[in-house]
Amino acid sequence: MSHRVVIVGGGFGGLYAAQELRRANVEITLIDRRNFHLFQPLLYQVATGALSPGEIASPLRYVLNGQKNTKVLLGEVTGVEPGPREVLLADGGRVPYDTLILATGATHDYFGHPEWAQYAPGLKTIEDATEIRTRVLLAFEQAERETDPAVRRALLTFVVVGGGPTGVELAGALGEISRDTLRKDFRSINPAEANIFLIEGSSRLLPPYPPKLSSAAERSLIDLGVQTRAGSVVTHIDADGVVLKAGETETRLAARTVLWAAGVHASPLGQLLAARTGVSLDRVGRVKVEADLSIAGHPEILVIGDLACREQDGKPIPGVAPSAMQMGRYAAALIMKRLRGESAAPFRYWDKGSLATIGRNRAVAAIGPLHFSGYLAWLTWIFVHLLFIVEFENRILIAFHWAYDYFTFNRGARLITGHWRPGKSLTDASS
Amino acid sequence: MSHRVVIVGGGFGGLYAAQELRRANVEITLIDRRNFHLFQPLLYQVATGALSPGEIASPLRYVLNGQKNTKVLLGEVTGVEPGPREVLLADGGRVPYDTLILATGATHDYFGHPEWAQYAPGLKTIEDATEIRTRVLLAFEQAERETDPAVRRALLTFVVVGGGPTGVELAGALGEISRDTLRKDFRSINPAEANIFLIEGSSRLLPPYPPKLSSAAERSLIDLGVQTRAGSVVTHIDADGVVLKAGETETRLAARTVLWAAGVHASPLGQLLAARTGVSLDRVGRVKVEADLSIAGHPEILVIGDLACREQDGKPIPGVAPSAMQMGRYAAALIMKRLRGESAAPFRYWDKGSLATIGRNRAVAAIGPLHFSGYLAWLTWIFVHLLFIVEFENRILIAFHWAYDYFTFNRGARLITGHWRPGKSLTDASS
Repeated sequence: MSHRVVIVGGGFGGLYAAQELRRANVEITLIDRRNFHLFQPLLYQVATGALSPGEIASPLRYVLNGQKNTKVLLGEVTGVEPGPREVLLADGGRVPYDTLILATGATHDYFGHPEWAQYAPGLKTIEDATEIRTRVLLAFEQAERETDPAVRRALLTFVVVGGGPTGVELAGALGEISRDTLRKDFRSINPAEANIFLIEGSSRLLPPYPPKLSSAAERSLIDLGVQTRAGSVVTHIDADGVVLKAGETETRLAARTVLWAAGVHASPLGQLLAARTGVSLDRVGRVKVEADLSIAGHPEILVIGDLACREQDGKPIPGVAPSAMQMGRYAAALIMKRLRGESAAPFRYWDKGSLATIGRNRAVAAIGPLHFSGYLAWLTWIFVHLLFIVEFENRILIAFHWAYDYFTFNRGARLITGHWRPGKSLTDASS
Repeated sequence: MSHRVVIVGGGFGGLYAAQELRRANVEITLIDRRNFHLFQPLLYQVATGALSPGEIASPLRYVLNGQKNTKVLLGEVTGVEPGPREVLLADGGRVPYDTLILATGATHDYFGHPEWAQYAPGLKTIEDATEIRTRVLLAFEQAERETDPAVRRALLTFVVVGGGPTGVELAGALGEISRDTLRKDFRSINPAEANIFLIEGSSRLLPPYPPKLSSAAERSLIDLGVQTRAGSVVTHIDADGVVLKAGETETRLAARTVLWAAGVHASPLGQLLAARTGVSLDRVGRVKVEADLSIAGHPEILVIGDLACREQDGKPIPGVAPSAMQMGRYAAALIMKRLRGESAAPFRYWDKGSLATIGRNRAVAAIGPLHFSGYLAWLTWIFVHLLFIVEFENRILIAFHWAYDYFTFNRGARLITGHWRPGKSLTDASS
């Protein structure tokens, strides 16, 4: 019987590991609780009506259907038994492994305030994205009908919490929606009067980027009408808005739409693994891995992607798509080397650079020693993102959307969907 | 002050009425409870994973944003007051009109068995389509993991109730999904072994079509592996399947997925209008209209599209997209003529023909005296549908999807979304 590799999670880490093993003499089972691979870097474009969910998601079975050694299993993993080497599923099923790759990623975290989740949705799933899309579009719709100027102002105030790449991209897209996309759509309100706030706790936006690019991103956001608040932390969120604290000063911002792009917490599978194997976790629940991405005492369990915690040259390896892809490929290569009886060099993350887009013609890029912003960075961002889209069909669809919308300032997928109905508040409807 | 036209419903009838009035000296308010116009004839393609919701939906504000005399209002109409000439909204708002156009369409109807709705979703909204998509894809996923052959067979049995155009299109698409799209995707099951039943109460499929085309459609369906059951009625539906009655014989079909494409009932606004104005309704709740589409005693209230009931040359005008478009244009022309003091000829429906597609290269067409099927009918179907898609952007996206998927046998948008999670049954999850 050939070596059984079980991969949990079909994100960048898990999918790249499976694909790298395509010619290996192993029996792969890829388990995911969703039936598709999601291209998360473009999820904010679904949340802001530029793309449709299907365009950034690819069915895992389809992506892997030509790979004879691979089976895809739709299921939720609820435990790992390192003794008998089995993975447990929510429906009671057990999947035995010889090598296990855990790649279940991360979810958002509200810094000990789970009650904020209902007021400030985060952006990790397709459902999160369509929920945010509904909230944003609905705020403009309700403002159009509102006669009380204070309420209308709160409806037209959008707060994005977290000034990392996701927060910057969301705030930039909100700026474009209000200035360009909806420009001619309303009769009673002027969408361009929307107030968009981007809140970042540290002293500048995009903290991991070079300071020059943080400033460039901030200037681009200000051009789009976004009000940036670096050095401010959110101390409270409710249905009416947020409380910000900058130094000793607390201010209340009345806002009906708050979006969360701040805290991240590793998938709960880390905790389950720690309970069973004694492996240590970091502050946000990520699993501390050895130089070969295995966990202490269990060389047959590899942890990759956002679920893994590893330092390199004194700095943590960032939880971004390229590091997940590289870890996935490394894990696959490690398994093949072990099967041949060879040893493997430690994993090394190759930082290809960072890219964040703010809006049309506006992006920032740090690629090795090159730090640049503006049109060229934006073209680079487009090129790189199209390159990594998994399905060829989606690549063409997205390229067409972007080209068409660039010239027309349109965003064709701005649908209000879900269980909301007019006359109900959003909170009523979701209960 | 100019003449106030209130249009309720942004489907084909309401949207075409608003657009036809674009240069009229009137003040238009278009009210819809959704923020988009939905191209319903392609909804089954969303339900079967070929297209994404955003590709068949166009934001009403966007479609009408260049039309200065028109205001779009997101709201749910809960009443009509013919005395003061006001429309009532769910949130308590009131919208006064001089002429009212009601175009709220129809929903599905379970022939007095509302409890069937949970087991057999119908196909009228985007949410219906994504729900059906989830059920169909999940049935294959669950079958892949099922070891009991009887349960597996029930999971791989799909019943479509209703052999009109929607039922035929759904059943044909299910045939293609199981034979082509998913062909290489599973390891334990062969999707081509799925049993797809199409149930029709009358003696042949597509009852309003010429008998020759009914036979052609049936042959095409059989080629795709669909088992057609004309002359059978459904007498019971539950979580385990359906009971069919043909003549005196009752048979139980074990099926985990049942889709409803049978009964249609007019929007409840018809009933509200009847209570206020005494207008009569037909058996399925449609409003009986006069020769000029107004209602008896209220020339200022026009009812169009699927909500209207009118005979022409002894036959009812069918509830299809072309009749709604023609009624919308007629209503607009009538208003303009009245404002000029002219009288209008009665509405006449011009039957441009009927088209239904079964699958790739397979369709049936009845256009005037021409009745044809096969490749040419299929090309005609594609051409006509692309022509009537409202947004140019969506037209290109859909054309690309169709062309690409034609050659690759793919359906790129087959996502399992919503609140379902593995380990729960679908019924648990939706509660």
